[in-house]
Amino acid sequence: MSAKNDRIIRALFRQPVDQTPVWIMRQAGRYLPEYRAARAKAGNFLTLCKTPELACEATLQPLRRFQLDAAIIFSDILTIPDAMGLGLYFTEGEGPRFQNPIRDRQAINCLPIIDPEIELRYVMDAIRLCHAELKQELPIIGFSGSPWTLATYMVEGGASKEFQVIKKLLYSEPKTLHLLLEKLSVVIIDYLNAQIKAGVEVVMLFDTWGGILTTQDYYQFSLHYLTKIIQGLHCQQNGKRIPVILFTKGSSQWLEKIAESGCDAVGIDWTIDINIARKRIGDKVALQGNLDPAALYASPENIRIEVASLLEKSGKGSGHIFNLGHGISQYVDPEHVRVLVDAVHELSRSYHI
Amino acid sequence: MSAKNDRIIRALFRQPVDQTPVWIMRQAGRYLPEYRAARAKAGNFLTLCKTPELACEATLQPLRRFQLDAAIIFSDILTIPDAMGLGLYFTEGEGPRFQNPIRDRQAINCLPIIDPEIELRYVMDAIRLCHAELKQELPIIGFSGSPWTLATYMVEGGASKEFQVIKKLLYSEPKTLHLLLEKLSVVIIDYLNAQIKAGVEVVMLFDTWGGILTTQDYYQFSLHYLTKIIQGLHCQQNGKRIPVILFTKGSSQWLEKIAESGCDAVGIDWTIDINIARKRIGDKVALQGNLDPAALYASPENIRIEVASLLEKSGKGSGHIFNLGHGISQYVDPEHVRVLVDAVHELSRSYHI
Repeated sequence: MSAKNDRIIRALFRQPVDQTPVWIMRQAGRYLPEYRAARAKAGNFLTLCKTPELACEATLQPLRRFQLDAAIIFSDILTIPDAMGLGLYFTEGEGPRFQNPIRDRQAINCLPIIDPEIELRYVMDAIRLCHAELKQELPIIGFSGSPWTLATYMVEGGASKEFQVIKKLLYSEPKTLHLLLEKLSVVIIDYLNAQIKAGVEVVMLFDTWGGILTTQDYYQFSLHYLTKIIQGLHCQQNGKRIPVILFTKGSSQWLEKIAESGCDAVGIDWTIDINIARKRIGDKVALQGNLDPAALYASPENIRIEVASLLEKSGKGSGHIFNLGHGISQYVDPEHVRVLVDAVHELSRSYHI
Repeated sequence: MSAKNDRIIRALFRQPVDQTPVWIMRQAGRYLPEYRAARAKAGNFLTLCKTPELACEATLQPLRRFQLDAAIIFSDILTIPDAMGLGLYFTEGEGPRFQNPIRDRQAINCLPIIDPEIELRYVMDAIRLCHAELKQELPIIGFSGSPWTLATYMVEGGASKEFQVIKKLLYSEPKTLHLLLEKLSVVIIDYLNAQIKAGVEVVMLFDTWGGILTTQDYYQFSLHYLTKIIQGLHCQQNGKRIPVILFTKGSSQWLEKIAESGCDAVGIDWTIDINIARKRIGDKVALQGNLDPAALYASPENIRIEVASLLEKSGKGSGHIFNLGHGISQYVDPEHVRVLVDAVHELSRSYHI
């Protein structure tokens, strides 16, 4: 049985909708006081991710406040390398780190192909809990980081600014890097299929760091594997097709190629006009985005103006999932998110008659 | 009298050359042991910038090692706000900071329009010293940060990751921000004209942070002022035209517009193929770039392969200034730079017959 509010599913398949669907990347996050309280209670971020009841609660928090058109399971892209034995931890100010970064062929060879139903069972349990709580009223989005993006953290040993270690590997031992990306692709396919089995109705692939590559390297080291993953998904679940959103930050120059990956929607960041993106891609896939996350710092009146402007650029017809062009900042006033969500619904109606 | 090696000038005007000219962004920098020694002797980075003899020495250091086709005056884009009274200082690990960031209309109104011949005289003195040392053998490139890029540091109070303060200003008080950008444009025009008078033969505008803007905001808050600055330059000096290179990092989606700014060359980062950029822009302007800075981590053999591949994409004829797509990393082996520079000269000859 499909979710009652199926606006996002319909928009992903470019079917008619009454209003443009909207959700917010990182909608369950630090800008919400109730999230900060839950995290404080859990003690730390990882416990929040790894305790299904707490992850489910975090997933539901923004839905209680705002008329969002989708839930996204509360988790982190780095749970995969953590489950593969790299030992994820977080430091104040420095972001995620790994106790055991992997930097050579030997270490990559030794990486286990995990069973997500076992090592990442806490994610599936959280999805099942959310599924029960939501009573099919709203679709749940499942997600994974891209192989390239996960590899950057695994090889660098955490967040990076210069990506020195992985770029060195790319230019000196491309085959070793391919081995890692291949292995990650296998795990990601299993992981996302497990999420689909647990109840997610949409899948999103986050390629946060694809944009630091040259064109040729993006195609070879990132998009190639994303395409493979999309092909490997059980996109049919209970007779329904599971749509896939693919988002590479900083990918304006590659949109046409991304649209050919087999995905159902291309996520676009805020640096490109959505009408230009649409013109370049054509009607083949839906588009997700692309309000500047910083527009939420504006006054409520100005937020409405920005929303109106984006909807006008997006134009008539379906195939647009409203979102930010990147995750929401922790410094945003939650009331501004309400203004955004309500404005999208209210102002988009005239484009869907 | 023009410089004896005028390859870069000729390439900027798309005139025939014997070899593709090459220089490296941040070529006088921390990857050179002699630079690190000079900086240690000076005590800190700012003293190096502000002491003409030391800045001249830093400028000349890479020229003694490599067959580069241009010098770029050793300085920092933040000397302008420093001279305007913001009090620049550097902290270990955190990068540049300002003692007195400016965040409201009042502070912007009070910002002085400085006379670069007085407050930034140390830059002109360094240029004059280099000019005398180089005996016209090599052109000197002068530069400035763009108004938008300087404004990000001035408003944020230093380097930023989220650009929260300036984005808030942009969305809530665009007129106040325009006031600051207008003021900076006036100062930058004076500053670059002073550099031209002191002897630079090429001018480069660094718009490091233009790429974080939406398309409309990039045009209004960055490119608009860059166009104005180019119009305000004394591009004729002793009967010679002074060519201008404009570089906005992360601007692949806006190349056509940038080429219409009045600049002589567009700098491109490494995320776009130079043949695609050329196809989109046409023959109107030269192109500078665009090797992935991380390619210098590769082995000498692979560096030569990367250079060959870029030269092939660039193709026959003039109008290409070889460079990285961003500043060189401090972790690069200087010997790899030699391999790069020599490979560009050697392998490019066949494209210029």
